[in-house]
Amino acid sequence: MRFVLAAGSTKTARIEGISAAGATPELMTQTPAIDAEILTYGQPVSSELVPVSPTGCPTPAVISRAIREQVGFDTTVLDAGLAAETDAPTVSVGADPGRDIRENRAVPGTEAVFERSRRLGRSLPDDELFVAETIPGGTTTAAALLRALGTDLGVSSSLPENPLALKERVVTAGFDASGIDPGGLADAPLAAIEAVGDPVQATVTGLTVGALESGSSVTLAGGTQLVATAGLVRAIGREEPLALATTAFVAADPAVDLDAAAATLDLDVSVTDPGFARTEHVAMQRYVAGEAKEGVGMGGALALAEREGIGMGTVRDRIAVVYDRLDPAAISESKRATDGGGR
Amino acid sequence: MRFVLAAGSTKTARIEGISAAGATPELMTQTPAIDAEILTYGQPVSSELVPVSPTGCPTPAVISRAIREQVGFDTTVLDAGLAAETDAPTVSVGADPGRDIRENRAVPGTEAVFERSRRLGRSLPDDELFVAETIPGGTTTAAALLRALGTDLGVSSSLPENPLALKERVVTAGFDASGIDPGGLADAPLAAIEAVGDPVQATVTGLTVGALESGSSVTLAGGTQLVATAGLVRAIGREEPLALATTAFVAADPAVDLDAAAATLDLDVSVTDPGFARTEHVAMQRYVAGEAKEGVGMGGALALAEREGIGMGTVRDRIAVVYDRLDPAAISESKRATDGGGR
Repeated sequence: MRFVLAAGSTKTARIEGISAAGATPELMTQTPAIDAEILTYGQPVSSELVPVSPTGCPTPAVISRAIREQVGFDTTVLDAGLAAETDAPTVSVGADPGRDIRENRAVPGTEAVFERSRRLGRSLPDDELFVAETIPGGTTTAAALLRALGTDLGVSSSLPENPLALKERVVTAGFDASGIDPGGLADAPLAAIEAVGDPVQATVTGLTVGALESGSSVTLAGGTQLVATAGLVRAIGREEPLALATTAFVAADPAVDLDAAAATLDLDVSVTDPGFARTEHVAMQRYVAGEAKEGVGMGGALALAEREGIGMGTVRDRIAVVYDRLDPAAISESKRATDGGGR
Repeated sequence: MRFVLAAGSTKTARIEGISAAGATPELMTQTPAIDAEILTYGQPVSSELVPVSPTGCPTPAVISRAIREQVGFDTTVLDAGLAAETDAPTVSVGADPGRDIRENRAVPGTEAVFERSRRLGRSLPDDELFVAETIPGGTTTAAALLRALGTDLGVSSSLPENPLALKERVVTAGFDASGIDPGGLADAPLAAIEAVGDPVQATVTGLTVGALESGSSVTLAGGTQLVATAGLVRAIGREEPLALATTAFVAADPAVDLDAAAATLDLDVSVTDPGFARTEHVAMQRYVAGEAKEGVGMGGALALAEREGIGMGTVRDRIAVVYDRLDPAAISESKRATDGGGR
């Protein structure tokens, strides 16, 4: 089993109020790069800052890392359009950061990134892949993508209050700028990514298609962003079994209907509840309030812990250890960036 | 503990007869990229070919990988000037492939690569690093570097017959082209790399200096190429304890005096004999004939196996498993490239 994290970025994420994957839009640019470092090394390396939401909820990278320290799975990070340098080792798939979907083309070069990732998915020797993402603003591009495919499924949010009206305006502007209609690209999934998607979609879809082609099994480790990936994989015509492992926080989001996703896209959906309500620890309490919900393969990592027979109490203890190992000054500095007014 | 592999290349390696790190000069360009894949995934991913010497001796990456499968250590690959694409995840230190040392400047931009690697060495959270290399032609650049520093230590070879006369001509031409004299850059180690070294030297020296500065312990995992690194670290003025872990094949090379290296550079040298003479397996028999000898941290990996109490019989069994898992057609194809006359 290999846990593959596709890390990327878009200009879409810089729209005020669209994402909580960073204390400020500036810091959000670094979030995927540092998520990759936390997953790989257990802490940030290229920067002092720990990615937190505007209220201080730490990145789900902390949770996936904590489980990795218990289960011991191999990880591989793909540079799926990073906008910041990272000290985590990455495989390049030739992706650039995505543009704002309100521009004419959101992801120029989608086909090349898809094919490069597909070749990698075919070549990796592992018989099972868990495929994860970290890309701020990813639920907005997921919403646009699903609409372009004509797959009427709702998306989640890293914010406790899903900014659905704002997302709707952004998606509509994206469709206008690209001159496309809902469902208009149902038969052209790569064109849908290019028009209104993001580079992580091109990467994880290519990787998944390649892995399925070579007979490997794939678990999409994440929430509604990975539902969009499943939509792409099905639109491309792959009919192999496909699993989605996500968190109870995504399942509890009223905007999300996982049963519908499972039925529409023939997905084997599993939901894991890490029981964060049973702890007061700062690393976990904001999740209970509905923040973050998913990311960096958190749902997949929780499913792996369960499969290995590691109890959620043990998982929570380890999350506390990983979080407490992070530099407290760096965390409060990250939060101060917000308190100072979103510089 | 983290096992860091710096993978790079130079035009120097393309000089006919200088290295056995590939069946032909063309295939040699791919060797470091594929070594990184074998260490990471257990087999080549981006190519069908397995790096072998002209006589079919497989790359020492097979040995380090086999031990990794038993000891379970974390690995990180640095792109220290790769000339071929790799599907292994890498951290960029901004290095380009090195030129031919017979040109005026062998490694333009040495200082930037050194400083980037030094920052990484300081920032990595591990309290112990094993530092390894894969760069064809690396013993020739090591010889040139040691001479520039005025450290009179011999170098090994990946060939059973060390081509000392050829190396001597290349090194002399390098000194002429750079307008330097033996010992002339004893106080300017980075200038010595820039004049007659290679990008892996800039990377591993920076990484080692940074790690020592932050209080981590470092074991240089390799042969005379890492002796040259030790020379650079000492010339830069770091006086911390420094270990070198290499193989019995390097120690047996009459051109090499590890005792002198230990004394001159204050190195804690350890030598491990994997007992390959006790097996007829094709993956190991050419080592007994003096081929390859070291590379991809083989000596360090053997030392780690010993530290973990894994017997050399167990190590040899696992090497056979890893080798036999490789595609036999790919191995014979790699050899045929040579038999066909070095196309």
